[in-house]
Amino acid sequence: LNKLFVIKIGGNIIDDEKKLLSFLKDFSSVEGQKILIHGGGKLATSIAGQMNVTQQMVEGRRITDAETLKIVTMVYAGYINKNIVARLQANGCNAIGMTGADGNAILASKRSHPTIDYGFAGDIKTVSAGLFLNILEQGLIPVIAPITHNGEGQLLNTNADTIAQEIAKAMSRHFHTELFYCFEKTGVLLNAEDDTSVIPRITPVFYKELKDKQVVHSGMLPKLDNAFSALDSGVKRVVVGKAEELTQLITGEKGTSIRNDQ
Amino acid sequence: LNKLFVIKIGGNIIDDEKKLLSFLKDFSSVEGQKILIHGGGKLATSIAGQMNVTQQMVEGRRITDAETLKIVTMVYAGYINKNIVARLQANGCNAIGMTGADGNAILASKRSHPTIDYGFAGDIKTVSAGLFLNILEQGLIPVIAPITHNGEGQLLNTNADTIAQEIAKAMSRHFHTELFYCFEKTGVLLNAEDDTSVIPRITPVFYKELKDKQVVHSGMLPKLDNAFSALDSGVKRVVVGKAEELTQLITGEKGTSIRNDQ
Repeated sequence: LNKLFVIKIGGNIIDDEKKLLSFLKDFSSVEGQKILIHGGGKLATSIAGQMNVTQQMVEGRRITDAETLKIVTMVYAGYINKNIVARLQANGCNAIGMTGADGNAILASKRSHPTIDYGFAGDIKTVSAGLFLNILEQGLIPVIAPITHNGEGQLLNTNADTIAQEIAKAMSRHFHTELFYCFEKTGVLLNAEDDTSVIPRITPVFYKELKDKQVVHSGMLPKLDNAFSALDSGVKRVVVGKAEELTQLITGEKGTSIRNDQ
Repeated sequence: LNKLFVIKIGGNIIDDEKKLLSFLKDFSSVEGQKILIHGGGKLATSIAGQMNVTQQMVEGRRITDAETLKIVTMVYAGYINKNIVARLQANGCNAIGMTGADGNAILASKRSHPTIDYGFAGDIKTVSAGLFLNILEQGLIPVIAPITHNGEGQLLNTNADTIAQEIAKAMSRHFHTELFYCFEKTGVLLNAEDDTSVIPRITPVFYKELKDKQVVHSGMLPKLDNAFSALDSGVKRVVVGKAEELTQLITGEKGTSIRNDQ
C-alpha cells in the first residue's frame, strides 16, 4: 500500500501568518499522497463580533445557531480554505479546497442531545473514500474545511479533529495511512510544564501504564482514546506534535507516535 | 462530441431564496455534462456594511481593496458557493464547489490600468480544461465562485460573466459547448420595455442589421460582442434569458440564441 498522510492543523497555526506560511511550505514538500484538514481560528469570532452575532459556548463547544453557521461557512470554507489553497498552489502543491458537501465527501447528521441544542453541529456518518481516491489519483491534494452537510441541503459545523480521524479511518483500506494532529505542544508530555518531556512512542500496553499511574494530563486522554480508536480502524500511526516540526513528526524524530505495534 | 452546458447565474437569482431553489432543481434535471458559475449578490454588500467596510465603485465596478477581497472570498467562495453545492447535493446532483485557485482551475493576473487602481481584481490568463475534464469524467458537477488566483498565493476577485465565457471557450475543444447567461430579462429584446419582444435568434448578419438600425439596447452590446467572441472561439451557441426558464432556454423555446450558423 502507498503511504497517505492525513494532517490536521488548528487555530494556533491558522491565526499566525508567519507560522502558517512556513507550515504550508513544509506541507508542500511532504512526498507522497496527503490530505490537509484545517480548523477554524480566531477570525470567525472576530467577524461575529463585527457583525454583532453573540457566540454561545457550552462545555467548550460553540453553539452553532443559524447566524454562526453562516459566519463559519464564510470564514472556514471561504476565507481560510481558499487562502490556504492559493498559498499551496504558489508552492507548486496542486491543492483543491473542499467541504464535506463538495462531491458529497462527508455526510453528517445534525447532532442530537437530550438536553443541549448544539444547533447546526454535524456528527459524521460517512466519508466517501472513493471520491478522495479519485481526487488523489488526479494528483490533487484535498484541503478540507470543517463544514459538512446532511445530504438534504443543510450545511453543518463539524469538529476538524473528528473529520481528520474519520478521513484517516476511511482511507486506511486503500493506503498505509498515518494521521497527524498538529497542536500547540511538542507531543504528549510526561510533565505538562516541560516541553522537552515528550513521550516519543505510546503503545496500548504503555498507554495503560500511563493511565494507571495518572501520568498523562487529563486533557490528553480523549485525544489518545481517539488515536487508539483510529488505530483499531486500520490507521497505522497517529502522531501528535507541533506543526512547526512537521518534517520531523513524519520521520518520527519529534512528537509522540502512537501505534498498536512496537 | 458530447454536449456541455456552461450556465451562469447572477445576483437576481442568488438573492432570491425561492427562485434559487427552483433554479437549482431545474439545473439538477439538465441531462448531460454541465458547469455552473455564480456571481455575487447583495450579501457581500450587506456584510461589508455590517463590518463597516466602505464599498468603492468606479464605473459600475467594485474596487477590490484588501478588506473587500476578504469579504467577497468569504461570501462568494464560502457562503454562496457551499449553500448552492449542499442544495444541489440534496437534488441528487453531485456538485463540487471551486474557485479558480482550486486545482489551479483559473489562473489570472491582477488588473493593471493606467489611471484606475482596481485593487485585487483578476483578469483571466488560462483555464485548465484538463482539470475540468477530469472532474466531469468523475461524474462531478463543478460550481464555480467568481474568485481566481495569480499562482503566487494571491486570490483575485473576477467577473463571473468572464469566467463563464473563458470556461466555455476552453472546453469547446472537448465538448459541443453551449453557454447560458441567465439574467433578469427574458432575452435580447426588440423593445426594452416589452418583455415579450424577445429576439429568438441572432446571427452575425442579423446582429450587424440590429446594430445599424440601433434596435438593440446599448447595454446589451458588450454582452453580444462577448457572445460572438465566444462563438468565434468554438462555442456552438450562446443563450441569454431568464434563469426561471432554464429548461426552455436549453430547448430553444425561450430566450435569445446567438449562433454563427443559421
